[in-house]
Amino acid sequence: MTGQLEITLPAFKRGYHLITDLIERKLPPLPEKGLVNILLQHTSAGISLNENADPSVRIDFESFMNKLIPENNQFYSHSDEGDDDMPAHLKASLIGASLTIPITNHRLNLGTWQGIYLCEFRNSGGCRRLVVTVIS
Amino acid sequence: MTGQLEITLPAFKRGYHLITDLIERKLPPLPEKGLVNILLQHTSAGISLNENADPSVRIDFESFMNKLIPENNQFYSHSDEGDDDMPAHLKASLIGASLTIPITNHRLNLGTWQGIYLCEFRNSGGCRRLVVTVIS
Amino acid sequence: MTGQLEITLPAFKRGYHLITDLIERKLPPLPEKGLVNILLQHTSAGISLNENADPSVRIDFESFMNKLIPENNQFYSHSDEGDDDMPAHLKASLIGASLTIPITNHRLNLGTWQGIYLCEFRNSGGCRRLVVTVIS
Repeated sequence: MTGQLEITLPAFKRGYHLITDLIERKLPPLPEKGLVNILLQHTSAGISLNENADPSVRIDFESFMNKLIPENNQFYSHSDEGDDDMPAHLKASLIGASLTIPITNHRLNLGTWQGIYLCEFRNSGGCRRLVVTVIS
Repeated sequence: MTGQLEITLPAFKRGYHLITDLIERKLPPLPEKGLVNILLQHTSAGISLNENADPSVRIDFESFMNKLIPENNQFYSHSDEGDDDMPAHLKASLIGASLTIPITNHRLNLGTWQGIYLCEFRNSGGCRRLVVTVIS
Repeated sequence: MTGQLEITLPAFKRGYHLITDLIERKLPPLPEKGLVNILLQHTSAGISLNENADPSVRIDFESFMNKLIPENNQFYSHSDEGDDDMPAHLKASLIGASLTIPITNHRLNLGTWQGIYLCEFRNSGGCRRLVVTVIS
Protein backbone atom coordinates (compact mmCIF):
# COMPACT_ATOMS: atom_id res chain seq x y z
CA MET A 1 0.00 0.00 0.00
CA THR A 2 1.50 3.27 -1.04
CA GLY A 3 -1.23 5.82 -0.69
CA GLN A 4 -4.78 6.91 -1.16
CA LEU A 5 -6.36 10.23 -2.04
CA GLU A 6 -9.67 11.74 -3.02
CA ILE A 7 -10.00 13.85 -6.15
CA THR A 8 -13.01 16.09 -6.67
CA LEU A 9 -13.46 16.73 -10.38
CA PRO A 10 -14.78 19.99 -11.74
CA ALA A 11 -18.38 19.79 -12.94
CA PHE A 12 -18.45 18.48 -16.49
CA LYS A 13 -21.34 18.86 -18.89
CA ARG A 14 -23.16 15.76 -20.07
CA GLY A 15 -20.84 13.79 -22.32
CA TYR A 16 -17.49 12.03 -22.41
CA HIS A 17 -14.41 13.86 -21.16
CA LEU A 18 -10.70 13.01 -21.13
CA ILE A 19 -9.39 13.31 -17.55
CA THR A 20 -6.05 11.48 -17.77
CA ASP A 21 -3.92 14.61 -17.34
CA LEU A 22 -6.13 15.93 -14.57
CA ILE A 23 -5.70 12.68 -12.61
CA GLU A 24 -1.96 12.34 -13.29
CA ARG A 25 -1.34 15.86 -11.98
CA LYS A 26 -3.00 14.93 -8.67
CA LEU A 27 -1.19 11.63 -8.11
CA PRO A 28 1.55 11.35 -5.49
CA PRO A 29 4.95 10.07 -6.67
CA LEU A 30 4.21 6.54 -7.86
CA PRO A 31 6.20 3.40 -7.00
CA GLU A 32 8.29 1.77 -9.71
CA LYS A 33 5.64 -0.91 -10.24
CA GLY A 34 2.18 -1.49 -8.86
CA LEU A 35 -1.48 -0.75 -9.47
CA VAL A 36 -3.67 2.33 -9.29
CA ASN A 37 -7.36 1.80 -8.56
CA ILE A 38 -9.77 4.64 -9.31
CA LEU A 39 -13.32 4.45 -7.96
CA LEU A 40 -15.93 6.94 -9.10
CA GLN A 41 -18.27 7.27 -6.10
CA HIS A 42 -21.44 7.86 -8.11
CA THR A 43 -24.22 5.88 -9.77
CA SER A 44 -25.15 8.16 -12.65
CA ALA A 45 -21.71 8.63 -14.21
CA GLY A 46 -19.01 6.21 -15.37
CA ILE A 47 -15.28 5.90 -15.87
CA SER A 48 -13.70 4.11 -18.81
CA LEU A 49 -10.59 3.73 -20.94
CA ASN A 50 -10.92 4.72 -24.57
CA GLU A 51 -9.41 6.64 -27.46
CA ASN A 52 -7.47 9.72 -26.37
CA ALA A 53 -6.80 11.52 -29.64
CA ASP A 54 -9.87 12.30 -31.75
CA PRO A 55 -12.67 14.21 -29.96
CA SER A 56 -15.19 12.82 -32.47
CA VAL A 57 -14.98 9.45 -30.69
CA ARG A 58 -16.33 11.06 -27.54
CA ILE A 59 -19.12 12.77 -29.46
CA ASP A 60 -20.13 9.46 -31.04
CA PHE A 61 -20.15 7.83 -27.58
CA GLU A 62 -22.72 10.38 -26.41
CA SER A 63 -24.89 9.89 -29.51
CA PHE A 64 -24.71 6.13 -29.51
CA MET A 65 -25.32 5.60 -25.81
CA ASN A 66 -28.35 7.92 -25.95
CA LYS A 67 -29.84 5.77 -28.71
CA LEU A 68 -28.97 2.52 -26.95
CA ILE A 69 -30.47 3.69 -23.64
CA PRO A 70 -33.16 6.22 -24.51
CA GLU A 71 -34.85 8.60 -22.11
CA ASN A 72 -38.38 8.02 -23.32
CA ASN A 73 -38.82 4.39 -22.24
CA GLN A 74 -42.34 4.39 -20.89
CA PHE A 75 -41.63 1.39 -18.69
CA TYR A 76 -39.16 3.19 -16.41
CA SER A 77 -40.67 3.29 -12.92
CA HIS A 78 -37.77 5.31 -11.42
CA SER A 79 -38.50 8.71 -12.94
CA ASP A 80 -38.84 11.15 -10.04
CA GLU A 81 -35.40 12.65 -10.57
CA GLY A 82 -35.85 13.50 -14.25
CA ASP A 83 -35.84 11.81 -17.63
CA ASP A 84 -32.06 11.56 -17.63
CA ASP A 85 -31.82 9.76 -14.28
CA MET A 86 -32.75 6.12 -14.93
CA PRO A 87 -30.82 6.06 -18.25
CA ALA A 88 -27.83 7.40 -16.30
CA HIS A 89 -28.03 4.53 -13.81
CA LEU A 90 -28.22 2.00 -16.65
CA LYS A 91 -25.27 3.53 -18.48
CA ALA A 92 -23.29 3.59 -15.23
CA SER A 93 -23.48 -0.18 -14.78
CA LEU A 94 -22.75 -0.89 -18.45
CA ILE A 95 -19.68 1.39 -18.52
CA GLY A 96 -18.54 0.75 -14.95
CA ALA A 97 -17.50 2.88 -11.98
CA SER A 98 -13.87 1.88 -11.49
CA LEU A 99 -10.59 1.23 -13.24
CA THR A 100 -7.44 -0.60 -12.17
CA ILE A 101 -4.35 0.49 -14.10
CA PRO A 102 -0.78 -0.86 -13.88
CA ILE A 103 2.12 1.35 -12.81
CA THR A 104 5.42 0.80 -14.63
CA ASN A 105 8.51 2.96 -14.19
CA HIS A 106 6.60 5.24 -11.79
CA ARG A 107 3.90 6.06 -14.39
CA LEU A 108 0.44 4.84 -15.41
CA ASN A 109 1.12 2.21 -18.07
CA LEU A 110 -1.74 2.87 -20.47
CA GLY A 111 -1.64 2.01 -24.16
CA THR A 112 -0.55 4.74 -26.57
CA TRP A 113 -4.14 5.57 -27.51
CA GLN A 114 -5.77 4.96 -24.14
CA GLY A 115 -7.08 7.78 -22.03
CA ILE A 116 -9.34 7.91 -18.98
CA TYR A 117 -12.87 9.09 -19.75
CA LEU A 118 -15.20 10.65 -17.23
CA CYS A 119 -18.61 9.72 -18.65
CA GLU A 120 -21.14 12.25 -17.35
CA PHE A 121 -24.61 10.82 -17.93
CA ARG A 122 -26.66 13.49 -16.11
CA ASN A 123 -27.65 16.83 -17.59
CA SER A 124 -26.32 18.54 -14.44
CA GLY A 125 -24.25 16.00 -12.57
CA GLY A 126 -22.16 18.51 -10.67
CA CYS A 127 -18.76 17.75 -9.20
CA ARG A 128 -17.87 14.04 -9.14
CA ARG A 129 -15.56 12.43 -6.61
CA LEU A 130 -12.87 9.80 -7.19
CA VAL A 131 -11.06 7.66 -4.61
CA VAL A 132 -7.59 6.81 -5.91
CA THR A 133 -5.64 3.97 -4.26
CA VAL A 134 -2.02 3.12 -5.07
CA ILE A 135 -0.83 -0.41 -4.27
CA SER A 136 2.70 -1.74 -4.73
CA MET B 1 -2.10 -9.21 1.28
CA THR B 2 -4.44 -9.34 4.22
CA GLY B 3 -6.83 -12.16 3.52
CA GLN B 4 -9.07 -14.06 1.20
CA LEU B 5 -12.39 -15.82 1.70
CA GLU B 6 -15.18 -17.42 -0.28
CA ILE B 7 -18.77 -16.35 0.20
CA THR B 8 -21.62 -18.50 -1.03
CA LEU B 9 -24.68 -16.35 -1.59
CA PRO B 10 -28.20 -17.59 -0.99
CA ALA B 11 -30.11 -18.36 -4.19
CA PHE B 12 -31.66 -15.16 -5.53
CA LYS B 13 -34.49 -14.99 -7.99
CA ARG B 14 -33.87 -13.49 -11.41
CA GLY B 15 -33.28 -9.76 -11.00
CA TYR B 16 -31.02 -7.22 -9.33
CA HIS B 17 -30.33 -7.55 -5.59
CA LEU B 18 -28.49 -5.37 -3.08
CA ILE B 19 -25.85 -7.49 -1.32
CA THR B 20 -23.66 -4.82 0.30
CA ASP B 21 -24.70 -5.66 3.86
CA LEU B 22 -24.46 -9.37 3.26
CA ILE B 23 -20.87 -8.99 2.03
CA GLU B 24 -19.81 -6.55 4.77
CA ARG B 25 -21.03 -8.94 7.46
CA LYS B 26 -18.78 -11.67 6.08
CA LEU B 27 -15.62 -9.59 5.75
CA PRO B 28 -12.75 -10.06 8.19
CA PRO B 29 -11.51 -6.94 10.04
CA LEU B 30 -10.25 -4.69 7.26
CA PRO B 31 -6.93 -2.82 7.20
CA GLU B 32 -6.95 0.95 7.56
CA LYS B 33 -6.46 1.39 3.81
CA GLY B 34 -6.33 -1.00 0.89
CA LEU B 35 -8.48 -2.67 -1.74
CA VAL B 36 -11.13 -5.38 -1.74
CA ASN B 37 -11.55 -7.42 -4.91
CA ILE B 38 -14.75 -9.42 -5.35
CA LEU B 39 -14.92 -12.02 -8.12
CA LEU B 40 -18.23 -13.67 -8.99
CA GLN B 41 -17.23 -17.13 -10.24
CA HIS B 42 -20.04 -17.47 -12.76
CA THR B 43 -20.80 -16.63 -16.38
CA SER B 44 -24.56 -16.11 -16.24
CA ALA B 45 -24.75 -13.55 -13.44
CA GLY B 46 -23.01 -10.23 -12.81
CA ILE B 47 -21.86 -7.92 -10.05
CA SER B 48 -22.11 -4.15 -10.23
CA LEU B 49 -22.22 -0.91 -8.25
CA ASN B 50 -25.42 1.09 -8.50
CA GLU B 51 -28.12 2.98 -6.61
CA ASN B 52 -28.74 1.60 -3.13
CA ALA B 53 -31.90 3.43 -2.04
CA ASP B 54 -34.87 3.08 -4.39
CA PRO B 55 -35.89 -0.50 -5.30
CA SER B 56 -37.51 0.80 -8.51
CA VAL B 57 -34.03 1.26 -9.98
CA ARG B 58 -33.44 -2.47 -9.69
CA ILE B 59 -36.81 -3.24 -11.26
CA ASP B 60 -36.02 -0.96 -14.19
CA PHE B 61 -32.65 -2.67 -14.62
CA GLU B 62 -34.41 -6.02 -15.07
CA SER B 63 -36.91 -4.56 -17.57
CA PHE B 64 -34.36 -2.62 -19.57
CA MET B 65 -31.75 -5.36 -19.80
CA ASN B 66 -34.40 -7.84 -20.97
CA LYS B 67 -35.34 -5.50 -23.79
CA LEU B 68 -31.72 -4.78 -24.67
CA ILE B 69 -30.78 -8.48 -24.73
CA PRO B 70 -33.96 -10.38 -25.58
CA GLU B 71 -34.50 -14.11 -25.24
CA ASN B 72 -36.15 -14.62 -28.60
CA ASN B 73 -33.19 -13.83 -30.86
CA GLN B 74 -33.49 -16.52 -33.50
CA PHE B 75 -29.79 -16.30 -34.33
CA TYR B 76 -28.61 -17.67 -30.97
CA SER B 77 -26.85 -20.98 -31.59
CA HIS B 78 -26.19 -21.66 -27.88
CA SER B 79 -29.70 -22.58 -26.76
CA ASP B 80 -29.48 -26.05 -25.20
CA GLU B 81 -29.63 -24.73 -21.64
CA GLY B 82 -32.81 -22.70 -22.06
CA ASP B 83 -33.97 -19.40 -23.53
CA ASP B 84 -32.51 -17.47 -20.62
CA ASP B 85 -28.99 -18.91 -20.96
CA MET B 86 -27.36 -17.09 -23.88
CA PRO B 87 -28.88 -13.73 -22.86
CA ALA B 88 -27.43 -14.37 -19.39
CA HIS B 89 -23.93 -14.87 -20.82
CA LEU B 90 -24.23 -11.65 -22.84
CA LYS B 91 -25.47 -9.65 -19.85
CA ALA B 92 -22.64 -11.09 -17.73
CA SER B 93 -19.92 -9.66 -19.98
CA LEU B 94 -21.66 -6.30 -20.34
CA ILE B 95 -22.16 -5.89 -16.58
CA GLY B 96 -18.95 -7.63 -15.49
CA ALA B 97 -18.02 -10.32 -12.98
CA SER B 98 -15.79 -8.45 -10.56
CA LEU B 99 -15.42 -5.28 -8.54
CA THR B 100 -12.41 -3.66 -6.89
CA ILE B 101 -13.36 -1.29 -4.06
CA PRO B 102 -11.13 0.93 -1.89
CA ILE B 103 -10.86 0.46 1.85
CA THR B 104 -10.59 3.64 3.95
CA ASN B 105 -10.67 3.74 7.76
CA HIS B 106 -11.22 -0.04 7.85
CA ARG B 107 -14.41 0.16 5.74
CA LEU B 108 -15.48 -0.17 2.11
CA ASN B 109 -15.29 3.38 0.76
CA LEU B 110 -18.32 3.43 -1.52
CA GLY B 111 -20.19 6.57 -2.49
CA THR B 112 -23.23 7.52 -0.41
CA TRP B 113 -25.63 6.08 -2.97
CA GLN B 114 -23.53 3.13 -4.14
CA GLY B 115 -24.42 -0.43 -3.27
CA ILE B 116 -23.23 -3.78 -4.56
CA TYR B 117 -25.73 -5.50 -6.87
CA LEU B 118 -25.86 -9.22 -7.48
CA CYS B 119 -27.37 -9.36 -10.97
CA GLU B 120 -29.03 -12.76 -11.39
CA PHE B 121 -29.67 -13.31 -15.09
CA ARG B 122 -30.91 -16.93 -14.95
CA ASN B 123 -34.44 -17.97 -14.05
CA SER B 124 -33.00 -20.46 -11.54
CA GLY B 125 -29.37 -19.58 -11.04
CA GLY B 126 -29.02 -21.19 -7.64
CA CYS B 127 -26.37 -20.26 -5.10
CA ARG B 128 -23.60 -18.06 -6.50
CA ARG B 129 -20.04 -17.99 -5.18
CA LEU B 130 -17.78 -14.98 -4.59
CA VAL B 131 -14.03 -14.93 -3.97
CA VAL B 132 -13.15 -11.90 -1.84
CA THR B 133 -9.51 -10.79 -1.64
CA VAL B 134 -8.26 -8.03 0.68
CA ILE B 135 -4.99 -6.30 -0.24
CA SER B 136 -3.23 -3.64 1.78
CA MET C 1 4.12 -6.60 -5.47
CA THR C 2 5.33 -9.81 -6.99
CA GLY C 3 5.92 -9.08 -10.62
CA GLN C 4 4.86 -7.55 -13.88
CA LEU C 5 5.21 -8.64 -17.48
CA GLU C 6 4.00 -7.76 -20.94
CA ILE C 7 2.38 -10.36 -23.17
CA THR C 8 2.01 -9.78 -26.89
CA LEU C 9 -0.83 -11.90 -28.20
CA PRO C 10 -0.82 -13.42 -31.66
CA ALA C 11 -3.11 -11.63 -34.12
CA PHE C 12 -6.64 -12.97 -33.74
CA LYS C 13 -9.37 -12.62 -36.31
CA ARG C 14 -12.45 -10.57 -35.44
CA GLY C 15 -14.42 -12.41 -32.79
CA TYR C 16 -14.21 -13.80 -29.29
CA HIS C 17 -11.25 -16.02 -28.35
CA LEU C 18 -10.37 -18.03 -25.25
CA ILE C 19 -6.89 -17.00 -24.06
CA THR C 20 -6.81 -18.42 -20.53
CA ASP C 21 -4.22 -21.12 -21.32
CA LEU C 22 -2.10 -18.74 -23.32
CA ILE C 23 -1.94 -16.30 -20.40
CA GLU C 24 -1.36 -18.98 -17.75
CA ARG C 25 1.59 -20.37 -19.69
CA LYS C 26 3.25 -16.93 -19.64
CA LEU C 27 2.73 -16.18 -15.94
CA PRO C 28 5.66 -16.35 -13.52
CA PRO C 29 5.26 -18.64 -10.47
CA LEU C 30 2.34 -17.11 -8.58
CA PRO C 31 2.20 -16.39 -4.84
CA GLU C 32 -0.05 -18.52 -2.66
CA LYS C 33 -2.67 -15.76 -2.57
CA GLY C 34 -3.03 -12.41 -4.26
CA LEU C 35 -4.41 -10.71 -7.34
CA VAL C 36 -3.54 -10.66 -11.03
CA ASN C 37 -4.46 -7.55 -13.00
CA ILE C 38 -4.52 -7.79 -16.78
CA LEU C 39 -4.73 -4.58 -18.83
CA LEU C 40 -5.36 -4.73 -22.57
CA GLN C 41 -3.57 -1.64 -23.92
CA HIS C 42 -5.99 -0.99 -26.76
CA THR C 43 -9.23 0.87 -27.43
CA SER C 44 -10.78 -1.30 -30.15
CA ALA C 45 -10.65 -4.69 -28.42
CA GLY C 46 -11.81 -5.93 -25.03
CA ILE C 47 -11.10 -8.54 -22.38
CA SER C 48 -13.80 -10.37 -20.45
CA LEU C 49 -14.63 -13.45 -18.41
CA ASN C 50 -17.20 -15.80 -19.89
CA GLU C 51 -18.11 -19.38 -20.71
CA ASN C 52 -15.08 -21.53 -21.48
CA ALA C 53 -16.63 -24.72 -22.84
CA ASP C 54 -19.01 -24.30 -25.76
CA PRO C 55 -17.62 -22.36 -28.77
CA SER C 56 -21.16 -21.47 -29.81
CA VAL C 57 -21.27 -18.94 -26.96
CA ARG C 58 -18.41 -17.03 -28.56
CA ILE C 59 -20.10 -17.13 -31.96
CA ASP C 60 -23.31 -15.74 -30.47
CA PHE C 61 -21.32 -12.95 -28.78
CA GLU C 62 -20.02 -11.84 -32.18
CA SER C 63 -23.50 -11.95 -33.74
CA PHE C 64 -25.25 -10.21 -30.88
CA MET C 65 -22.72 -7.45 -30.36
CA ASN C 66 -22.75 -6.66 -34.10
CA LYS C 67 -26.53 -6.20 -33.94
CA LEU C 68 -26.34 -4.17 -30.73
CA ILE C 69 -23.62 -1.87 -32.09
CA PRO C 70 -24.03 -1.83 -35.88
CA GLU C 71 -21.51 -0.52 -38.37
CA ASN C 72 -23.99 1.39 -40.49
CA ASN C 73 -25.01 4.06 -38.01
CA GLN C 74 -25.13 7.17 -40.16
CA PHE C 75 -24.57 9.43 -37.18
CA TYR C 76 -21.01 8.23 -36.50
CA SER C 77 -18.64 11.15 -37.05
CA HIS C 78 -15.48 9.11 -36.35
CA SER C 79 -15.32 7.05 -39.54
CA ASP C 80 -11.91 7.74 -41.12
CA GLU C 81 -10.45 4.42 -39.96
CA GLY C 82 -13.16 2.20 -41.44
CA ASP C 83 -16.71 1.10 -40.70
CA ASP C 84 -15.54 -1.27 -37.99
CA ASP C 85 -13.62 1.38 -36.02
CA MET C 86 -16.20 3.41 -34.11
CA PRO C 87 -18.26 0.28 -33.27
CA ALA C 88 -15.02 -1.24 -31.95
CA HIS C 89 -14.44 1.72 -29.62
CA LEU C 90 -18.02 1.47 -28.32
CA LYS C 91 -17.76 -2.28 -27.74
CA ALA C 92 -14.43 -1.75 -25.97
CA SER C 93 -15.94 0.48 -23.29
CA LEU C 94 -19.00 -1.74 -22.82
CA ILE C 95 -16.92 -4.92 -22.43
CA GLY C 96 -13.94 -3.31 -20.70
CA ALA C 97 -10.16 -3.36 -21.08
CA SER C 98 -9.01 -4.98 -17.87
CA LEU C 99 -9.61 -7.83 -15.45
CA THR C 100 -8.55 -8.38 -11.85
CA ILE C 101 -8.54 -12.05 -10.84
CA PRO C 102 -7.79 -13.63 -7.45
CA ILE C 103 -4.87 -16.01 -6.94
CA THR C 104 -5.47 -18.96 -4.62
CA ASN C 105 -3.02 -21.81 -4.05
CA HIS C 106 -0.64 -20.30 -6.63
CA ARG C 107 -3.27 -20.38 -9.43
CA LEU C 108 -5.87 -18.10 -11.00
CA ASN C 109 -9.04 -18.77 -9.03
CA LEU C 110 -11.64 -18.59 -11.78
CA GLY C 111 -14.99 -20.35 -11.63
CA THR C 112 -15.27 -23.77 -13.25
CA TRP C 113 -16.86 -22.36 -16.39
CA GLN C 114 -14.98 -19.05 -16.54
CA GLY C 115 -12.38 -18.36 -19.17
CA ILE C 116 -10.62 -15.21 -20.33
CA TYR C 117 -11.89 -13.89 -23.66
CA LEU C 118 -9.90 -11.68 -25.96
CA CYS C 119 -12.65 -9.80 -27.80
CA GLU C 120 -11.27 -8.62 -31.12
CA PHE C 121 -13.59 -5.97 -32.51
CA ARG C 122 -11.54 -4.88 -35.56
CA ASN C 123 -11.44 -6.72 -38.87
CA SER C 124 -7.64 -6.65 -38.74
CA GLY C 125 -6.65 -5.68 -35.22
CA GLY C 126 -3.19 -7.23 -35.38
CA CYS C 127 -1.19 -8.24 -32.33
CA ARG C 128 -2.63 -6.97 -29.04
CA ARG C 129 -0.58 -6.25 -25.94
CA LEU C 130 -1.39 -7.07 -22.31
CA VAL C 131 0.28 -5.75 -19.16
CA VAL C 132 0.02 -8.35 -16.39
CA THR C 133 0.65 -7.30 -12.78
CA VAL C 134 0.82 -9.73 -9.86
CA ILE C 135 0.18 -8.34 -6.37
CA SER C 136 0.37 -10.28 -3.12
